[in-house]
Amino acid sequence: MEEKKVAVVGAGLVGSLLAVLLAKKGMQVDVFERRPDLRKAKAIGGRSINLALSNRGFKALSLAGFDQEIRDISIPMYGRKMHDLKGNLTYQAYGKDNEAIYSVSRGQLNQKLMNLADDFENVKYRFDHACEDIDLPSNKITFANGESKEKNHYSYDQIFGTDGAFSSVRGVLQKTPMFNYSQDYLPHGYKELNFPANPDGTHCMDKNCLHIWPRGEFMMIALPNLDGSFTVTLFFPMKGEVSFESIDTEEKVVDFFNSTFADAVPHMPTLVDDYFSNPTSTLVTIRCSPWNYEDKVMLLGDASHAIVPFYGQGMNSGLEDCSVFFEMYDEHKDDVNALFEAFSKQRVPDGNAIADLALYNYIEMRDLAGDKDFLLRKKIERKFSDMYPDNWMPLYSQVTFSHIRYSEALAAGNRQRKIMDEVMGMNNIHENWDDQKVIDKILSLIK
Amino acid sequence: MEEKKVAVVGAGLVGSLLAVLLAKKGMQVDVFERRPDLRKAKAIGGRSINLALSNRGFKALSLAGFDQEIRDISIPMYGRKMHDLKGNLTYQAYGKDNEAIYSVSRGQLNQKLMNLADDFENVKYRFDHACEDIDLPSNKITFANGESKEKNHYSYDQIFGTDGAFSSVRGVLQKTPMFNYSQDYLPHGYKELNFPANPDGTHCMDKNCLHIWPRGEFMMIALPNLDGSFTVTLFFPMKGEVSFESIDTEEKVVDFFNSTFADAVPHMPTLVDDYFSNPTSTLVTIRCSPWNYEDKVMLLGDASHAIVPFYGQGMNSGLEDCSVFFEMYDEHKDDVNALFEAFSKQRVPDGNAIADLALYNYIEMRDLAGDKDFLLRKKIERKFSDMYPDNWMPLYSQVTFSHIRYSEALAAGNRQRKIMDEVMGMNNIHENWDDQKVIDKILSLIK
Repeated sequence: MEEKKVAVVGAGLVGSLLAVLLAKKGMQVDVFERRPDLRKAKAIGGRSINLALSNRGFKALSLAGFDQEIRDISIPMYGRKMHDLKGNLTYQAYGKDNEAIYSVSRGQLNQKLMNLADDFENVKYRFDHACEDIDLPSNKITFANGESKEKNHYSYDQIFGTDGAFSSVRGVLQKTPMFNYSQDYLPHGYKELNFPANPDGTHCMDKNCLHIWPRGEFMMIALPNLDGSFTVTLFFPMKGEVSFESIDTEEKVVDFFNSTFADAVPHMPTLVDDYFSNPTSTLVTIRCSPWNYEDKVMLLGDASHAIVPFYGQGMNSGLEDCSVFFEMYDEHKDDVNALFEAFSKQRVPDGNAIADLALYNYIEMRDLAGDKDFLLRKKIERKFSDMYPDNWMPLYSQVTFSHIRYSEALAAGNRQRKIMDEVMGMNNIHENWDDQKVIDKILSLIK
Repeated sequence: MEEKKVAVVGAGLVGSLLAVLLAKKGMQVDVFERRPDLRKAKAIGGRSINLALSNRGFKALSLAGFDQEIRDISIPMYGRKMHDLKGNLTYQAYGKDNEAIYSVSRGQLNQKLMNLADDFENVKYRFDHACEDIDLPSNKITFANGESKEKNHYSYDQIFGTDGAFSSVRGVLQKTPMFNYSQDYLPHGYKELNFPANPDGTHCMDKNCLHIWPRGEFMMIALPNLDGSFTVTLFFPMKGEVSFESIDTEEKVVDFFNSTFADAVPHMPTLVDDYFSNPTSTLVTIRCSPWNYEDKVMLLGDASHAIVPFYGQGMNSGLEDCSVFFEMYDEHKDDVNALFEAFSKQRVPDGNAIADLALYNYIEMRDLAGDKDFLLRKKIERKFSDMYPDNWMPLYSQVTFSHIRYSEALAAGNRQRKIMDEVMGMNNIHENWDDQKVIDKILSLIK
């Protein structure tokens, strides 16, 4: 592929990193983005969105040599802190020692990646270019120009679709035979809220953890920003008795937050304004197969596997697409068709696995994170894993701190869950959880 | 809705029947079709396609008063006849007495329905109109004219999308929030072949049954036509060792058919020509939810639930959409939003159920229809059902000869399968199947 002229459609996180990695192989890379250059545009309110970078993401960033630069604009979170109805806190470490996930602003990260990509002579950004169609036989893309809607046409050897959950590139593939596709919405949506910084610029809560208010049918979370504020997200039913639809007046918002998130309310001076002016967004899971069209088009990131945000793996899995692609690149670089097919074949089951894990984790976060049995289960797992690290890596660690394939992590997690179901069924487990016989039981089941 | 001006997009079987039923309620109905009028066009080779009409389809047709006219252009098939590798035949009745499914040509049926619809003053067909987009706030449809590609715009109170598996109307809904959608291709495709009529115009095999050549990983079927010919369909893997991809020379086709469908070859004078000139088509399952967009758009037929053809229910389920819609019509006719929501809510699970049943029946037809255990299972079921008709209606009969909701039939079928699994596990069941203790066993399990 070295000599090829390629297009990357979508200048988000995955698109910008991919452009750099392709450029480093010597390709001529045009990156198209339907929006204006976000480095020149004003921030769009209510959708700042914080992300949690973890090991998979950093590994991909390090391929481009960017990992330290990105670490510098992020805040480590070593565990989750659960806030119950009365404001009592429970802490749970994510991993061991210094294992952490890193809170970073999507906008800042994207700008940084664009600036770094701009340093490559063979990467060229074209903003205000909305992909309208692709003629697959000739691999010619039709773009509509932002304001004038004038059409431009460009042809490429290969086209990479990194244009997100509502990908136009994928829309073209969807019309080809044998392309499997699904989009599934959760009945819940989300809305961004905000805890501003203290007057002295410090954070109003512990900044080195992810805060969760688990409430059964819904939840709120908060992630720290560099400027002392927290980005807060309410995940909530779209319709029904307690929902975005039903909580529709100032009074109801105030009552609801006072009774449900009492300890958070003092941190939210603009709650009512935020609630009514910020948009309500939906939560969709996108799957497709294959991710490629012959040797012409390849989908990566949300374009091929958009997932719900509850495992913090949306961005990480998209960035990992890039590192996995380049791990396979050398073996197949003279046969793009083989490269694309091999990548799709390997990566589709991993995309499906992390989609399943993310859906499951929603239940865990909102429902179980405040539950006694759940916390004990985690404690026993942690103890056993500390004693026998080669025999047991907790599922969360496999997903977040390892590079084990998602599909293998999912399978291992299912085996572990069955074992822990048996352990939790032992007599008086809440009293006896620290006994040797609990460890022996796990050892007997693991074999 | 009585006074409304409505559009039906797609003049196929479901669209034409729906147009008549809406017209009978007094609505002004414009029916749009992207193809030319098929009554004036030449038949397209290799895609004639035979369908099997059964009770659900006839019930919907009878709502319009058309059932006898359609019965007159169809041929009853009372059972399936399996052809094994040596040409031995096994017959299995579909139901009791005169229960049959009716072979009919899609083209002839569609023409007939169009002619009948044309008799209604308030139904107007517009051919060569391809739906390009719908502006949902105004319910304005943009059409591209067949040859000139000139755009026309029309607005309607309600729009019914009956434009098939690759529906443009559904494509518009797919972009709205909270619209769940999936398209799944089987790894198998199909190709149409042909047994011509005998020189005297008679059929070369028994015309009153559906012929099947079950071969495990694939199968061939034949349905009778009025002119003495059979429409034959080969269902076959798209790729792999034995597949459309691998059987790619005249010699391979002849060898393959001689060794696999020996008793059919003498009936196929144009086999090689047909194999290479007829297209290879794909088999897709489409699901979505909801089927409506507010009180503006409603999807019916393949547009909302395209299924694989192995239960003979694709057309029947689409026509049944119409009868179910008008069963709910009177209750809600003054509140279109309530009507559309109630219909979607009731019908989505039934569309999913018949999709599942059709996928399962592919395994049954190609794999089990030639299997001794399978045939015995059916025989025992039939005997029990004859003795206790109120306690046991075979799944096939529920789907094909009853009006029980598909979702209920699927659930009942699952219960029956579990019972029959136990019965087939009885000692020496192949020798003792006719004993009273087998009947007693079923009676004990059914309670």
